[in-house]
Amino acid sequence: MQVLTVARKTGKQSVLLERDIALLSAATVAGPKEGLGPLAADFDRICSDNIMKEESFEKAERHMLEEACYLSLGKARLTPDEIDLFIAGDLLNQVVTASFCARKLAVPFLGVYGACSTLAEGLSLGAMLVEGGFAKHVLVGTSSHNCGAERQYRYPTEYGFQRPGYAQWTATGAGAVVLGSGGEGPRVEAITTGKVVDSGIKDPLALGAAMAGAAADTIYNHFLDLDRNPSYYNTILTGDLGGIGKKLNEDILAGKGYDIRANYADCGVLLYYPHQKAGSGASGCASSALVFLSHFYRKMTAKKLRKILLVATGALHSPTTVLQQESIPCIAHAVSLEI
Amino acid sequence: MQVLTVARKTGKQSVLLERDIALLSAATVAGPKEGLGPLAADFDRICSDNIMKEESFEKAERHMLEEACYLSLGKARLTPDEIDLFIAGDLLNQVVTASFCARKLAVPFLGVYGACSTLAEGLSLGAMLVEGGFAKHVLVGTSSHNCGAERQYRYPTEYGFQRPGYAQWTATGAGAVVLGSGGEGPRVEAITTGKVVDSGIKDPLALGAAMAGAAADTIYNHFLDLDRNPSYYNTILTGDLGGIGKKLNEDILAGKGYDIRANYADCGVLLYYPHQKAGSGASGCASSALVFLSHFYRKMTAKKLRKILLVATGALHSPTTVLQQESIPCIAHAVSLEI
Repeated sequence: MQVLTVARKTGKQSVLLERDIALLSAATVAGPKEGLGPLAADFDRICSDNIMKEESFEKAERHMLEEACYLSLGKARLTPDEIDLFIAGDLLNQVVTASFCARKLAVPFLGVYGACSTLAEGLSLGAMLVEGGFAKHVLVGTSSHNCGAERQYRYPTEYGFQRPGYAQWTATGAGAVVLGSGGEGPRVEAITTGKVVDSGIKDPLALGAAMAGAAADTIYNHFLDLDRNPSYYNTILTGDLGGIGKKLNEDILAGKGYDIRANYADCGVLLYYPHQKAGSGASGCASSALVFLSHFYRKMTAKKLRKILLVATGALHSPTTVLQQESIPCIAHAVSLEI
Repeated sequence: MQVLTVARKTGKQSVLLERDIALLSAATVAGPKEGLGPLAADFDRICSDNIMKEESFEKAERHMLEEACYLSLGKARLTPDEIDLFIAGDLLNQVVTASFCARKLAVPFLGVYGACSTLAEGLSLGAMLVEGGFAKHVLVGTSSHNCGAERQYRYPTEYGFQRPGYAQWTATGAGAVVLGSGGEGPRVEAITTGKVVDSGIKDPLALGAAMAGAAADTIYNHFLDLDRNPSYYNTILTGDLGGIGKKLNEDILAGKGYDIRANYADCGVLLYYPHQKAGSGASGCASSALVFLSHFYRKMTAKKLRKILLVATGALHSPTTVLQQESIPCIAHAVSLEI
């Protein structure tokens, strides 16, 4: 029986980790549009098209996630056999990208669903399971594909649906990260697990606005639980609020007494250039994966940024709940990373 | 900083828990067909119809899960405010039953997707998070609804699709359980997290046969990791293999040198009487929830059964992957319970 120090629960929603749980490696595979964006130089691979010689967009997404997983394992100098748990999720019905990728990896697998908050949910769970001694190495992965997601949630892209300017663009790509104890990478230092927050928005194209309340609630409770202020972090990084949701999040937090504007960024705002016609910005599980696991992970390992609060956000609706005129429940999970 | 003993990893896929993590309470809400079955006396509530005065089957399922959660909380004499984490999942696209229930409970929420293995996945994760000190009380819930699942995966029930005799019947109902440290309930003593196993079956009506290989793989690795034999348990209880899958599972394990027939049962076989026309037996997340959290949980708390290996099984396909002619990846997670 091992005797170890374990996590401290702090406040209602947060835990502090004590055992130097690190992101040992990270890898990103970006779609072609993402590869034309401002972060192109930070991706490990950029796909030249959306289909990757596969028979369907769904299989192309799976291909991207598998590649991100193997790239991440390679960087950590680990084989799948050395992975105790694979934690993954995506947007497709029945989370099939993750499940089929788990079939290929053939390691113990826990499927999660947090919509676009999946990266933070996976990092949270993986870090806690390593900290608790339940696993030595955990692989976390997530992905989304514009063409697969659009035809499932809204219309096939071939239909040419006219998108309103406030809509977001589901990012195409995948990211994976290996968690373990020790090593040189950024540490998962604290975790705040989100509650579902529903702001009453029913428009499934206004996801940034719908998710802003959940992001603000999690960030607020993170500050409260850990007695921190926005200035504690070099960057507070939300997942995919886009321009509209980012502004709303700033406003809600200002109303609660926290001005985050000085060091606040949103992955959805950063992934594309304005001329790329991505509306209010990127969305999808790949938004936070492509931006955090490339650009910000590199900045952290280069010690140019030392403290980041990653707050990935997810809209937990389905096309059926939208047709049934339900409002959109949203969630955000926060992971504090330090190096 | 607390100093605690933490879990031991044993073998490739299993962990032993050391801190008396118990099922503090369990509750079940059964659909009308399930309420006419042999376990009727063990359910906490039986719904008189499939719609429960709601506007849709999806909302009726949500109603059932919410009720199971509140019943379970009541039995544990806890309010939602005393729950650190809610871990839940279901079969509906985007896991909306769990997410909308989490909106109502308003506690930190982690959505999971393991298809019909969700109960075991939730119990595994919840028990590890309590053992690791990350949560004091975790609420785990899952549900399925025949009419909601059939119209999503196959055909609306109103269509009157002629089902082959080997098909299974998606169970209607919900179950919830509160996990905590200490107390009188059955202990989560060991966990074996499953790998995805694909036996090459493409028929989405032959799910028991598809899942048998995953169940056998997890049980086999559980025995191997923990150096146990089938006789270690009073009952080995799979989730929803049904009659056909149960026999296949027995045969596969016999081929690996383990004869489990003496103390082996399957929730899918136990939920309905033969005259109820449920084909090969029950399936759906509610299968293991309705059978284990009612009948077997009561037998354990009455100390008539002391050791159970719960092995909930899930088929990780989607209607899209079936149309794309993929075979069905399956998973099974094992939770060893002792009192």
